[in-house]
Amino acid sequence: MANSAKQQNTDTEQTPLERLSSLLHDDMKAVNKSIIDHMQSDVPMIPQLAGYLIASGGKRIRPLLTLACTRMFDAGTDRPFGLAASVEFIHTATLLHDDVVDGSDERRGQKAANLVFGNQASVLVGDFLFSRAFQLMTADGSLEVLRILSDASAIIAQGEVKQLTTANNLETSMDDYIEVVSAKTAALFAAACEIGPVIAGQDKQAQAALAEYGMALGIAFQIIDDVLDYNAEQEKLGKAIGDDFREGKMTAPVLIALENASDDERAFWTRTMGELNQEDGDLARAMDIMIAHDSLNKGVKLAEDYAAKAIAALDSLPAAARDSELGIALKDLITFVINRAY
Amino acid sequence: MANSAKQQNTDTEQTPLERLSSLLHDDMKAVNKSIIDHMQSDVPMIPQLAGYLIASGGKRIRPLLTLACTRMFDAGTDRPFGLAASVEFIHTATLLHDDVVDGSDERRGQKAANLVFGNQASVLVGDFLFSRAFQLMTADGSLEVLRILSDASAIIAQGEVKQLTTANNLETSMDDYIEVVSAKTAALFAAACEIGPVIAGQDKQAQAALAEYGMALGIAFQIIDDVLDYNAEQEKLGKAIGDDFREGKMTAPVLIALENASDDERAFWTRTMGELNQEDGDLARAMDIMIAHDSLNKGVKLAEDYAAKAIAALDSLPAAARDSELGIALKDLITFVINRAY
Repeated sequence: MANSAKQQNTDTEQTPLERLSSLLHDDMKAVNKSIIDHMQSDVPMIPQLAGYLIASGGKRIRPLLTLACTRMFDAGTDRPFGLAASVEFIHTATLLHDDVVDGSDERRGQKAANLVFGNQASVLVGDFLFSRAFQLMTADGSLEVLRILSDASAIIAQGEVKQLTTANNLETSMDDYIEVVSAKTAALFAAACEIGPVIAGQDKQAQAALAEYGMALGIAFQIIDDVLDYNAEQEKLGKAIGDDFREGKMTAPVLIALENASDDERAFWTRTMGELNQEDGDLARAMDIMIAHDSLNKGVKLAEDYAAKAIAALDSLPAAARDSELGIALKDLITFVINRAY
Repeated sequence: MANSAKQQNTDTEQTPLERLSSLLHDDMKAVNKSIIDHMQSDVPMIPQLAGYLIASGGKRIRPLLTLACTRMFDAGTDRPFGLAASVEFIHTATLLHDDVVDGSDERRGQKAANLVFGNQASVLVGDFLFSRAFQLMTADGSLEVLRILSDASAIIAQGEVKQLTTANNLETSMDDYIEVVSAKTAALFAAACEIGPVIAGQDKQAQAALAEYGMALGIAFQIIDDVLDYNAEQEKLGKAIGDDFREGKMTAPVLIALENASDDERAFWTRTMGELNQEDGDLARAMDIMIAHDSLNKGVKLAEDYAAKAIAALDSLPAAARDSELGIALKDLITFVINRAY
């Protein structure tokens, strides 16, 4: 099984995410059908814009989590299809709105939807997908699922607003950052996982364990994402880096570099991230300072703390679920999320 | 009772909207408390921005409709408070997003929230209020209410996207326009009314009648709004006019003027609304053309057709509800909506 970093990087072995996809292949086909069916509308721009983003091939990690957290309990129901689609719609709606808010140029290696269809359409199609998500949940009929996902949606929006107020603010604490990350990213991971045992008719303990797993996994995932945004290796792979720097987002690597900053360095961060007064070469200097302070490795260490929490959360599941193929794949996924950084 | 246009315009008589407010005074206090309580958040910008718009004193017509359509059946439950708040949250969220989409300068006689707090915060706080609305519905627990309001939300977003595609398009038909108006405005009026009999435990017939009332009232309301945007009398009252003209929105008065336009006039509409190539004096000329074609009066006539449908819908209600004080106030409200144009 592909559970060491080395094996994951060989071409012949599947990554844990790919393994999750192949274990859930037929289910994901049904989820993808539900996604396509439910983004239809008489107004052609809606399936065009939604399809543009959805077909651009995200990893579908959130619907995979919902499916895995249902099927690991041997539940044979069709219910997760619509609900996993609804999780992906909430995610897609937040991406559309984020790209407008951030003025993004690119998403998943193609032009961001707001640049192709306009900010107006991106806002409104986001609203449509968000509404569709609640229509799907209502059709399913579980008030507990509605509670979990409406709570998550409110928390996501709060996290995004809080992120606005921490941007360009050098007084942002690591606690503020973890709060933002927990809300804007991890809350939907947690909800995607938590609805699994609800659909599978499991008890509150399984629900709490998988919510905790999703939350810790999501925090680790976002910290690694934030670390990768300053990683020169990513740039060599042709991936865009430095977005957070240009927007003045106060993420883990910057906060770590700030902790032990010299006066000179603090002045640099104040000018570039606080005042967004940036010149050519500033990103390179930011990355040099981070190397000097070991910020990226320390960022990964922080993510590893959450990875450990995610592993511990799985340990409290009933043995049959935890030791199932899907249970093991969920555990391997944690290592995979961390190993993206290497 | 204030059921003639003349009486409504005197200072001593209440308008039907004011009468509805005073009949439902205590209930509305509870709704307003629910609105204030549920827009709170640890992230200060959320209550600040939401409060800015909510405190600016909208007419609260949608929550009043929900309350009236519950209480007219003598239902004594507290349930409409949270649900009426949730209707107002959906409305507020769409206003916040609309103002971003339209690049609005003003709303309810004050600077639009997007200008004060930024487009980013307006998008995200809109998302927050929208999520809060679904949290409130979930707490209430009626899947029928969730169905009605999630359907309405999806239809509103579709209508807004369709409006984007009809803007600046001189080929827009009156059917397209009515479809946009039904979706972007009337769907929420209809839903606000329809949930009343659901809360009051009434049958499907009462539900359908009040949904139809709300839909027809909402269409009439929006047509009159669109007529007023070209009304010189409004300008004398200090109200902004010409917003739709400047944005190239294809509303009833323009579509009517286009029906019998001379070649010269068609060229004018093509330049000003199709190409948004506008000069000083164009709005005045647009208004002159409309007077020549009797567009505003014909627009009001169109609204009156929907007013008649709204009245007919009320007729199919059980006599006790229809003839109650609230039933009569709902009927008078139709006339009031039309009389705004005079």
